[in-house]
Amino acid sequence: MSSDKLQVGIIGAGRIGRVHAESLAFRIPEANIVSITDLNRKAAEEVAARCGIKEIAESSEAVFADPRVDAVVICSSTDTHAGLIAQAAKAGKHIFCEKSIARSLREIDCALAAVAKAGVKLQIGFNRRFDPNFARVRHAVTSGEIGKPSLMHIISRDPGPPPLSYILVSGGMFVDMTIHDFDMARFLIGDEVEEIYAVGDVHVDPEIGNAGDIDTAVIILRFKNGVIGTIDNSRRAAYGYDQRVEILGSSGKIETDNCYPNAVTISTGSAVQRDLPLNFFMDRYKDSFAAELRAFVTAVLEGTPTLVNGLDGRIPVQMALAARKSHEERRPVRLDEVTA
Amino acid sequence: MSSDKLQVGIIGAGRIGRVHAESLAFRIPEANIVSITDLNRKAAEEVAARCGIKEIAESSEAVFADPRVDAVVICSSTDTHAGLIAQAAKAGKHIFCEKSIARSLREIDCALAAVAKAGVKLQIGFNRRFDPNFARVRHAVTSGEIGKPSLMHIISRDPGPPPLSYILVSGGMFVDMTIHDFDMARFLIGDEVEEIYAVGDVHVDPEIGNAGDIDTAVIILRFKNGVIGTIDNSRRAAYGYDQRVEILGSSGKIETDNCYPNAVTISTGSAVQRDLPLNFFMDRYKDSFAAELRAFVTAVLEGTPTLVNGLDGRIPVQMALAARKSHEERRPVRLDEVTA
Amino acid sequence: MSSDKLQVGIIGAGRIGRVHAESLAFRIPEANIVSITDLNRKAAEEVAARCGIKEIAESSEAVFADPRVDAVVICSSTDTHAGLIAQAAKAGKHIFCEKSIARSLREIDCALAAVAKAGVKLQIGFNRRFDPNFARVRHAVTSGEIGKPSLMHIISRDPGPPPLSYILVSGGMFVDMTIHDFDMARFLIGDEVEEIYAVGDVHVDPEIGNAGDIDTAVIILRFKNGVIGTIDNSRRAAYGYDQRVEILGSSGKIETDNCYPNAVTISTGSAVQRDLPLNFFMDRYKDSFAAELRAFVTAVLEGTPTLVNGLDGRIPVQMALAARKSHEERRPVRLDEVTA
Amino acid sequence: MSSDKLQVGIIGAGRIGRVHAESLAFRIPEANIVSITDLNRKAAEEVAARCGIKEIAESSEAVFADPRVDAVVICSSTDTHAGLIAQAAKAGKHIFCEKSIARSLREIDCALAAVAKAGVKLQIGFNRRFDPNFARVRHAVTSGEIGKPSLMHIISRDPGPPPLSYILVSGGMFVDMTIHDFDMARFLIGDEVEEIYAVGDVHVDPEIGNAGDIDTAVIILRFKNGVIGTIDNSRRAAYGYDQRVEILGSSGKIETDNCYPNAVTISTGSAVQRDLPLNFFMDRYKDSFAAELRAFVTAVLEGTPTLVNGLDGRIPVQMALAARKSHEERRPVRLDEVTA
Repeated sequence: MSSDKLQVGIIGAGRIGRVHAESLAFRIPEANIVSITDLNRKAAEEVAARCGIKEIAESSEAVFADPRVDAVVICSSTDTHAGLIAQAAKAGKHIFCEKSIARSLREIDCALAAVAKAGVKLQIGFNRRFDPNFARVRHAVTSGEIGKPSLMHIISRDPGPPPLSYILVSGGMFVDMTIHDFDMARFLIGDEVEEIYAVGDVHVDPEIGNAGDIDTAVIILRFKNGVIGTIDNSRRAAYGYDQRVEILGSSGKIETDNCYPNAVTISTGSAVQRDLPLNFFMDRYKDSFAAELRAFVTAVLEGTPTLVNGLDGRIPVQMALAARKSHEERRPVRLDEVTA
Repeated sequence: MSSDKLQVGIIGAGRIGRVHAESLAFRIPEANIVSITDLNRKAAEEVAARCGIKEIAESSEAVFADPRVDAVVICSSTDTHAGLIAQAAKAGKHIFCEKSIARSLREIDCALAAVAKAGVKLQIGFNRRFDPNFARVRHAVTSGEIGKPSLMHIISRDPGPPPLSYILVSGGMFVDMTIHDFDMARFLIGDEVEEIYAVGDVHVDPEIGNAGDIDTAVIILRFKNGVIGTIDNSRRAAYGYDQRVEILGSSGKIETDNCYPNAVTISTGSAVQRDLPLNFFMDRYKDSFAAELRAFVTAVLEGTPTLVNGLDGRIPVQMALAARKSHEERRPVRLDEVTA
Repeated sequence: MSSDKLQVGIIGAGRIGRVHAESLAFRIPEANIVSITDLNRKAAEEVAARCGIKEIAESSEAVFADPRVDAVVICSSTDTHAGLIAQAAKAGKHIFCEKSIARSLREIDCALAAVAKAGVKLQIGFNRRFDPNFARVRHAVTSGEIGKPSLMHIISRDPGPPPLSYILVSGGMFVDMTIHDFDMARFLIGDEVEEIYAVGDVHVDPEIGNAGDIDTAVIILRFKNGVIGTIDNSRRAAYGYDQRVEILGSSGKIETDNCYPNAVTISTGSAVQRDLPLNFFMDRYKDSFAAELRAFVTAVLEGTPTLVNGLDGRIPVQMALAARKSHEERRPVRLDEVTA
Repeated sequence: MSSDKLQVGIIGAGRIGRVHAESLAFRIPEANIVSITDLNRKAAEEVAARCGIKEIAESSEAVFADPRVDAVVICSSTDTHAGLIAQAAKAGKHIFCEKSIARSLREIDCALAAVAKAGVKLQIGFNRRFDPNFARVRHAVTSGEIGKPSLMHIISRDPGPPPLSYILVSGGMFVDMTIHDFDMARFLIGDEVEEIYAVGDVHVDPEIGNAGDIDTAVIILRFKNGVIGTIDNSRRAAYGYDQRVEILGSSGKIETDNCYPNAVTISTGSAVQRDLPLNFFMDRYKDSFAAELRAFVTAVLEGTPTLVNGLDGRIPVQMALAARKSHEERRPVRLDEVTA
């Protein structure tokens, strides 16, 4: 390590880049930001000003070439991830990269090969694993609080659909949205899925259907260990961001509710009610973004494995492709049918 | 016992008389209703028809004189209770009597003396003790689940005030409404109160104030064992009947919520909500009315003590009188200041 | 009608026969029980004594032949239902029959043809429709409280598996247990399912697997109107009887929780906890058994259609057969593939 | 203002001083910390290192004399507050001071006179007003969501008592602990209390009684507008930090629950349970500490009144003294009986 603090370069100063910069600057004393870069230099300057970052790098290449930099945080657009991972690996930098690595297994495998060859650490940004609710559920499974799992449900509904322009290039709902839930399923159960059956439809907006995508889906997962899981997705929940899981085990069940802005209940002549759950993923998962980066910094500084590695980035993409195939062919699809 | 079933006569065929008749007829196989009487013969006839009671008695005297009758259930107006108890006792009948025995300690003491002399059983209709929620709380206290109690709260709010005509003759809120909560306090803690401080005001309806009563109050109870309790009363809760208790003990707390018509939650774009709690005491306490009568029937048939005896009927009246005195004199009042 | 009360004969005095007899005797004044019969005469006598039924009929034939009887309540074993329905219909009796009508569509169609020919009323015992929780959910759907439905989940887990002897003859989990959930799905959404995909496994007891059945399953339902539903079944939930549903609509969601014996919460040094949900279906659904019979009595007396008719009894069996086929063939199965 | 950022000096580097330093350093970009001082220089150095504060001041006098400093944050021990406020005011510094200002009204009045004379801003550290739960309750009252308030309850129980050494000098439970609740009562109702009745006892630890204090109390507050309030205090709740309020109004009620580390529920064969509420005030009120300082910084920078002013610091002390007097004399005490 070039100092006792981890020296970090940030690539990408958009919404999530800014979140990670703030975490590194204000909440993780063990890290120091050397520089930040963005195609939009003004965006990089704004984040730098806010977070006290002293240097705006000209390009990602400049960051990779900087000998002071130990590790990079890649927050650029998804289509650049795989290439940047490979470059960073060649430069010997440890890598934290936002999900997804890429939308094809071929690209992912190239990137992971570069990482393996360089021997650097890679962590993928599946932040929800670091949410205290899901972490608590996972803990219950590993500690045996509910016995041996048999059934799992994930409910994951967005407050509203993304712009159509995004849907047209995102690879579809399974790839851009369910990807988080595929990761969550593997994380919670601690085992691999071998077969997927996906049913989807258009309920939210016919324009999404016209664009060739779906906005509502249920996916059945068969795990190797026999657990049967479902994922429930909708692009729009009128009441806000809905993120819940439940697991049935041989000695009990565990479930987690949504997060609310307060714990207040109001009873009037018409109903007993509370305010809507947190509506925006950056509010709901605020602490998990800092926690995942803290884990990355610790893993690099202490030389331990990262908690979300390259394979953890690859498999959810494979699952998404299998779900898409299942939906198109209206039959269950084995994961090993999707090879590239 | 004149048969293997308890032979019961019912005095009073009003709202609560009908409830008790239905419990005895349909839910307590160990009892048989011999006859029913009411000043309003038509009311008695209607209940008799509904519940399959074969005989309308001409008067309470006729019920007491009937050698087939083992026990009487007194559901007439409060001002008649003490006299009827004394008569029933003289006739050797066991007695279930609705609360309150009377509004003065002198009358109560006369009635209880008659009961003691006759050696009959007496149970007072504090039905809430038999509600599964409060019974569960009491059980937690006696079983030590929360350790030694130190603080207790009772919230007891009606959905709306009774008619002014009733308020004018009821003896006031402490006597007609809080009486149930005074009983509940003693029941939950299992100890006696030695001092009461009551604060009351008019928030619901100025006409109640004009009638010389209050409609909103908080009462502090100091128990002999050191527990400090409060009772919160309102004649009107806009959201319905509100009946909750909470006890803090040395190793935990226990609290009970209201009862709802269903367990359904609806989330829309404006709120997360559920339907209002059960609004009517006959819905909320439906099962407890049957349970108290079943306990009375069992006590008589098996020769065991009743669970709510004459003293349990007397002390809450004494507490109500102490609360009224405290409110009038704006000072804490010891229970032993109220002697008759 | 032979009187102003509905005159009823009961066939079968087992567990559910006794429940229906008690409802008719004590909770439905508009009905009168003429007689009861059971192959085990002693069982019939016990129920008769408890419920004040004056006559023990020698056989179901005797009940059907009794001119005083307007309607019969069939509570015998499932394999006798279809035959008894046909006989009762021929005798001109209105019929309330426990689910399922039969385990094959052929038998069901014979029974329904006899009912149609005789022009009598038939109601099938899907009591859960009358549970206040599910009725409230259905009401929200029909009234538009949550907009147009898109996703539906049913969780239905028993506290423990039935005896293996029962599993060997029951037709399997989809037929004996999920049948209620298939009915619930149609009831809640108010539309028909066109395709089913079922995944099942053995998690509870290997002996169930040895007997050729499963004990854990997830079923995806595609409704004609585009709604996607799931059913989650387990033969054993360690924490008790688990019966919940959730529906997502275009303007909100509705969900219902389990029912508890009390509304008490206890907080100690180790956890914030409440007692387990009601564990036994007869406790959980107590009121719904009376409500369904009351609805049947009303339908006959007032000449209105029954709320759960013959087709409502047939379709869930068809769904169960489709689910079984899907599970065996590991592919989605259209309902119209199952014809007899 | 000497710059566009508020230049702050911090006096006291204990537990709460560190919290405020971190808020100013990392969460309030509009403020800059010029220096910190503490009698224990090592403590000041540690906080300075953690928060990037460049200067350790020799003394509070040095801070007051520093022309760069616009405002001071006083986090020293309670007995020094009044003197430091007066000194800071004379030096023309704006003041944020931890509660309580002092334990006697005489000292408080001296400090407030100095503030008034200097024309500087003063904010008292009643952070709970900035908690999202209590802020939501207050909002419901002011916006009329529950109509006109009539009853209010505050439950405020610590997870465990402070050291006896602290109790011996703290002025007693009413002064050191209930002070927060007296402020909360005024804040929630938006009106002044005119009479207090307090009942206290020793339930937690007899040593607290031997030290002349109580550890358990209920206090009744009569507000000028007729609202009746209670405060329930215990030095020890076995299940953790318990901070709830409830208000009944003419058109409804509002209540707020405790805060939990997660939204997870676990159901096993013995109970349905969740993890204990947040146990430590710094976890429960974490965000409110930053929010109160942010409000102070804004008030100074924008020249608006502070949200918790000198009078808001004085009245709760007067209420505490009235409660103590009531407890000692066992009678209701009017606030105007406590004058110095």
